Amino acid sequence: VDEKLYQRALARHAALTKPPGSLGALEPLGARLAAVLGTLKPRPEGRAVAVFAADHGVAAAGVSAYPQSVTAGMVRNFLAGGAAVNALAAAAGAKLLIVDVGVAADVDDHPALWSRKVARGTRNMLHGPAMTRAELFAACAAGVEAAEHLAARGAVLLAGGEMGIGNTTAAAALTAHLTGAPARAVTGRGSGLDDAGLARKVAVVEQVLERHGEQATEPLEALRRFGGLEIAALTGFYVGAAALRAPVVLDGFIATAAALVAAALAPAVRDYLFAAHRSQEPGHAVQLQHLGLTPLFDLGLRLGEGSGAVLAFGLLEGAAAVLRDMATFEEAGL
Amino acid sequence: VDEKLYQRALARHAALTKPPGSLGALEPLGARLAAVLGTLKPRPEGRAVAVFAADHGVAAAGVSAYPQSVTAGMVRNFLAGGAAVNALAAAAGAKLLIVDVGVAADVDDHPALWSRKVARGTRNMLHGPAMTRAELFAACAAGVEAAEHLAARGAVLLAGGEMGIGNTTAAAALTAHLTGAPARAVTGRGSGLDDAGLARKVAVVEQVLERHGEQATEPLEALRRFGGLEIAALTGFYVGAAALRAPVVLDGFIATAAALVAAALAPAVRDYLFAAHRSQEPGHAVQLQHLGLTPLFDLGLRLGEGSGAVLAFGLLEGAAAVLRDMATFEEAGL
Repeated sequence: VDEKLYQRALARHAALTKPPGSLGALEPLGARLAAVLGTLKPRPEGRAVAVFAADHGVAAAGVSAYPQSVTAGMVRNFLAGGAAVNALAAAAGAKLLIVDVGVAADVDDHPALWSRKVARGTRNMLHGPAMTRAELFAACAAGVEAAEHLAARGAVLLAGGEMGIGNTTAAAALTAHLTGAPARAVTGRGSGLDDAGLARKVAVVEQVLERHGEQATEPLEALRRFGGLEIAALTGFYVGAAALRAPVVLDGFIATAAALVAAALAPAVRDYLFAAHRSQEPGHAVQLQHLGLTPLFDLGLRLGEGSGAVLAFGLLEGAAAVLRDMATFEEAGL
Repeated sequence: VDEKLYQRALARHAALTKPPGSLGALEPLGARLAAVLGTLKPRPEGRAVAVFAADHGVAAAGVSAYPQSVTAGMVRNFLAGGAAVNALAAAAGAKLLIVDVGVAADVDDHPALWSRKVARGTRNMLHGPAMTRAELFAACAAGVEAAEHLAARGAVLLAGGEMGIGNTTAAAALTAHLTGAPARAVTGRGSGLDDAGLARKVAVVEQVLERHGEQATEPLEALRRFGGLEIAALTGFYVGAAALRAPVVLDGFIATAAALVAAALAPAVRDYLFAAHRSQEPGHAVQLQHLGLTPLFDLGLRLGEGSGAVLAFGLLEGAAAVLRDMATFEEAGL
């Protein structure tokens, strides 16, 4: 992004009709939007969220409070308009795209569904890599394509979400591997595990890292071994958004695991990422710190689907609006 | 508010298509909106913010980084559309009402201005009560009237803001008196005092409380002695909103000082108050804790004008939207 424009935006903020700095974190946030969008008067209108869904072989290890069939059930719920992300996207005036990149069950065609099914779920990473190289690249490509599709239809502010039973386990393994944090520090209760379930999940993550962590010597290989098809798609989505120079809002723990991979692949991607919230999953704070991103709020969310990212759209628009629409002291004759 | 409806809303949340509790603070927030609006499907549309402006006699004690003339200047800026609250209200689709309850200078008529000037600023509270009883009641009445005016024109979700050079000093005195916190714990840098200015401001607050704190034996008398005309108007605004059963969003330190008075006068008002953010003024956290309210975000704001409250409108709508529009597992056939 344009560092000079960022500095000019901060300078403009200091001249606006308010005590300098009195809009707190909104000021650098607006300046970042200015730098990303290439204008001192950023207008991040045209909001869209893409939700990528896929299943996980590791679900067979009993790492989730819900059965695998819930992934397909929730995709049908997205298409019927009954999920949280439907309500929040409608409230925020955001377009919603549902992408099947790897749901284990068949999902009927629907105008709101993009069918890019790469496989019927991943392999169980306890026994080896979750994906083949071909699957990995196909899933990443679906994510890039989704970003391009949305941008071509007018989206300026993007967000990614996910659905996939078992995917906090994949995200935990990826996060531990990429940040160096211990498995127990980045493994949480996901959709609602009890103490015994959490202990089992931590053991699974430790076992996976032990078994083939050393072979994951670069980020894409870690993604292939420990990730999921939806996490790979999100990785592609973030890289694609950055290539399009579109600001893209992070959701929670799984989405941010994909951001870790994207930023490790191409550090410049980080400039296009905006943290929305800090989720209740303990590993999310570790990820955000690793990326050097500060969340806008912490409401104890742990749903995924892009829900927290969509909630942040209004705050990002607020940050853009003050920079864009306020008068300077000089303009106001004060 | 209707406690049974609150409990029914929480029960509905537990049945929606998501892990129970996974929307964190949005769940009780949506349930509170349901209880206030008297429906399981709350639709807090029709947003409005009233900004009350007035001057302060205590400004003569050098407690602000800006001269008194800035109050009138900023009112003119509100009317010209150049201030932060203009940009944020437009971004949030909120109607904006500017109310002059006591600006020291003349302000020209304008379609967006409500002229309810009670006095040309308050008296200096260092020497005695800031207001007469007549002034106090007239300012409170202007606030009640503003809430009724906005509600009659379709506003369902209200917020109050303020402008008044010197008003963090008034708010600090009120807050120390009403919460029992020491002056130094609730007195901050306002619009940008340096260390010497802050020390002077703390001394002024201590002196005022020493001089006539004991005579302020009930909340309205404290408001009359230490408050401002815009703080009195905000007090009336909150009481009026609660009487209309309208949810009303708090802004920062000065607005919340008025909420302390309103809640002390009529504890039921508290049920209608929604905390938006925690501001950078140190006394704001003390006030919110005293009221038992948890803010939605902390972005280091310290501007006032209702800016932080308006920023929260989207989060409140998000909380209402999930409760209102999501399907239950039963409805979704999951």
